[in-house]
Amino acid sequence: MATVIDGKAVAQTIRSEIADEVRLLSQKYGKVPGLAVVIVGNRKDSQSYVGMKRKACAELGIKSFDIDLPEEASEAEIIKNVHELNANPDVHGILVQLPLPKHVNEENVLTEISLTKDVDGFHPLNIGKLAMKGRDPLFLPCTPKGCLELLSRSGVSIKGKNAVVVGRSNIVGLPASLLLLKADATVTIVHSHTSQPENIIREADIVIAAAGQAKMIKGSWIKPGAAVIDVGTNSVDDPTRKSGYRLVGDVDFEEVSKVAGWITPVPGGVGPMTVTMLLKNTLEGAKRTIEQNN
Amino acid sequence: MATVIDGKAVAQTIRSEIADEVRLLSQKYGKVPGLAVVIVGNRKDSQSYVGMKRKACAELGIKSFDIDLPEEASEAEIIKNVHELNANPDVHGILVQLPLPKHVNEENVLTEISLTKDVDGFHPLNIGKLAMKGRDPLFLPCTPKGCLELLSRSGVSIKGKNAVVVGRSNIVGLPASLLLLKADATVTIVHSHTSQPENIIREADIVIAAAGQAKMIKGSWIKPGAAVIDVGTNSVDDPTRKSGYRLVGDVDFEEVSKVAGWITPVPGGVGPMTVTMLLKNTLEGAKRTIEQNN
Repeated sequence: MATVIDGKAVAQTIRSEIADEVRLLSQKYGKVPGLAVVIVGNRKDSQSYVGMKRKACAELGIKSFDIDLPEEASEAEIIKNVHELNANPDVHGILVQLPLPKHVNEENVLTEISLTKDVDGFHPLNIGKLAMKGRDPLFLPCTPKGCLELLSRSGVSIKGKNAVVVGRSNIVGLPASLLLLKADATVTIVHSHTSQPENIIREADIVIAAAGQAKMIKGSWIKPGAAVIDVGTNSVDDPTRKSGYRLVGDVDFEEVSKVAGWITPVPGGVGPMTVTMLLKNTLEGAKRTIEQNN
Repeated sequence: MATVIDGKAVAQTIRSEIADEVRLLSQKYGKVPGLAVVIVGNRKDSQSYVGMKRKACAELGIKSFDIDLPEEASEAEIIKNVHELNANPDVHGILVQLPLPKHVNEENVLTEISLTKDVDGFHPLNIGKLAMKGRDPLFLPCTPKGCLELLSRSGVSIKGKNAVVVGRSNIVGLPASLLLLKADATVTIVHSHTSQPENIIREADIVIAAAGQAKMIKGSWIKPGAAVIDVGTNSVDDPTRKSGYRLVGDVDFEEVSKVAGWITPVPGGVGPMTVTMLLKNTLEGAKRTIEQNN
């Protein structure tokens, strides 16, 4: 049976490490990291995610800045707010909650975030540096960074291993592949145009699943002993629950946990790591700025 | 026996297409594309490469700008020249010949080249856009672009195929992987830390070899019918030649040509394509600028 990687526990450990560092910063320089979140409109999921971030910030001593703009805010108005946050020395990280309303061009807004405050790590210049040998991005995208932290804190080495990433989104699959490559894995990227992905996945020592397909990865697809990180969060009908649904990953947990060496559950695996890595990026940005200016 | 892809002939075809377009631009707007090359010092290989580029420009009606700086030129001086070329409206492409002398930081110089004139396509912002879904770089790096042109002009489709790139340099392996991924191949990147690369390469419908290891890829490593693009140019001793050496690729041509469906020779495969793609990038940059301003 696979070791189940407890993402909640790992995230908690990292959060207390962050809290310690925040305390040190505050003692030494009288300053704390600041994370700004811009939300436009009233999407319920965005609101609840942002609430979670705000609470986590409070627990770790990170200062929250919340910019709530109405659904009908113009692109120019959103960008004006981003510019103000860029200029605010107490803000070390800026996150614009996606999706933005349809009348706004997301790319136009995101490229206005100062590179030194791009804690999501999605700026193309950051992604380019992540891809290139000998270059280092200022921030690593949160979910892929969380996946690699789960591996390293579980004692899974990456160098020289065969790693397969399932999915190639800009926010998970692609940067996860680039990170694994930088860590000297042999990397294969599998996606919707791949025929017979099972044959490729079966050769992998490390699988990162980020395809958004409920339970697509079966036990027979997995090499015995492999480490399987499941980024998927798909809701499936479940009449036995009050809500009528439950969340499942891209991996068939029941089957795969019998074959793999390590596996992350959904929920409670990668999920708790994403916000934690955002907080860690904010801390890193703050340290860079505060230590530079002192 | 594999079809040998004649890179010289393909390059010649593309060059005459470029010459036609240059003529049209000149007739319509009275303007021609301009390519500037900056060389620092007297390296013989750089000089001969630059000579080749200059000759090719002349043949196609592209205007050459040559900036020759002494070996001891300072970083600031080189950057000043780059800035002048950025500002010169007759220059549509800027190439700084590498390597630069040891006292100069190459990254500092290269990031000064205007993105709209970065015909090498090596700027991290360009690489980031190449990596990301839904983003398009202004220029594709020349050698990988040449590899894909050779495939498409030989009738080899990429979508859904298994592609393996051997090597992960910033100028060939990495961007070639990203280009293949954008073209919907299932991509694996193999490198010096990969154990038993032969097992991975054997599954490939398309192989791009850019490892810099003479004849490392053997006939038994290749899936029958695969397309094999050899970017390697390694010099090996050859006492039967006056020069005492000859150039060989990363692929064992004799063996692999018996198994593969397509193969590029060395020399005469990818080599002639690289300069041709540089000229094509210059034309594309010129068209963008000239058509925008008219």
